[in-house]
Amino acid sequence: MKIYGDRRSGNCYKLQLVCSLLDIPHEWIDIDIMAGATRGEAFTALNPNQKIPLLELDDGRCLAESNAILNYLALGSHLEPSDDFARARVLQWQFFEQYSHEPYIAVARFIALYQGLPEERRTEYEAKQAGGLKALDVMEQQLSETTYLVGDKLTTADVSLYAYTHVAHEGGFDLAGFSAISRWLRRIESEPGYIALG
Amino acid sequence: MKIYGDRRSGNCYKLQLVCSLLDIPHEWIDIDIMAGATRGEAFTALNPNQKIPLLELDDGRCLAESNAILNYLALGSHLEPSDDFARARVLQWQFFEQYSHEPYIAVARFIALYQGLPEERRTEYEAKQAGGLKALDVMEQQLSETTYLVGDKLTTADVSLYAYTHVAHEGGFDLAGFSAISRWLRRIESEPGYIALG
Repeated sequence: MKIYGDRRSGNCYKLQLVCSLLDIPHEWIDIDIMAGATRGEAFTALNPNQKIPLLELDDGRCLAESNAILNYLALGSHLEPSDDFARARVLQWQFFEQYSHEPYIAVARFIALYQGLPEERRTEYEAKQAGGLKALDVMEQQLSETTYLVGDKLTTADVSLYAYTHVAHEGGFDLAGFSAISRWLRRIESEPGYIALG
Repeated sequence: MKIYGDRRSGNCYKLQLVCSLLDIPHEWIDIDIMAGATRGEAFTALNPNQKIPLLELDDGRCLAESNAILNYLALGSHLEPSDDFARARVLQWQFFEQYSHEPYIAVARFIALYQGLPEERRTEYEAKQAGGLKALDVMEQQLSETTYLVGDKLTTADVSLYAYTHVAHEGGFDLAGFSAISRWLRRIESEPGYIALG
């Protein structure tokens, strides 16, 4: 199977991390999003929504959306809870990630890190801070109560939220005041098979 | 079990619709989001992210995020595919909905319908149009190839995307040019147990 992605993207990193944690063989195909590679004809035929990451199975079937791919790759592994409600909580955190976390923290990081915080995006960048801090507050509260986001075991929800949380400082977010999140980040980084972003 | 929601919200309507399609008994608790009810102390204790809809089971456990709740309620029903890859495709469409569809179409509708398109949000409203049309294009392409979003059977992916697509005109989107989407909307509306938004 092939995974199309950009190694600098947190959404793509989720898949690099899960493949490493679970030792899943795959072919990685670099797609340069800044050069517009997702909007080319060949890639658009694979994913009409023109986004990475994208999974292509050996039989040609494709799957888009980082969290959908992540859960598919982790099916039956120790990263997938066996209980229905716990699996639903994993999805809860992943939808939270895409709606309440990524649009603030990842976008602020993109503006600062890739675009060099241009003056015309400064207002937008500053407006992202409140939403990002709220998302971190929600995570901090959960991680003060449980070891991982869904109970006492590492799941794909942790992989999803780890991706942009551990580089939140690059978007202007200071994690010093989030002690439960900070401990959780270190815990994930000590997992066998852990690999860093990039 | 209890579902907390606002009957005017498309995200909440997903759950009203699935409960009606699957004949799931539940207690509906109206939450007036415009009056700030999700930010009150009692509701925040149930969902620290202060969003509706929210599912509360009889034993007190809570589940947030419309699509996570929707899939949980539909477990084992005819709306859940039995195949792993098809279930992953359902999630692909639901993450698409939350990231590439709802932030454009639902937000444009909110600005126009609930806020009366105030002058200070007109630029934002107009900026939502391109993203919304792109999401509709992606859906149109899929629905030109398959009867429903994931193959030839109705799934929770269709319920998720139906919620804001069928009222997209209230956000300024003309569905007249989207013939496959229009046929798909009518197909869902003829399902036994279908109920309208509101």
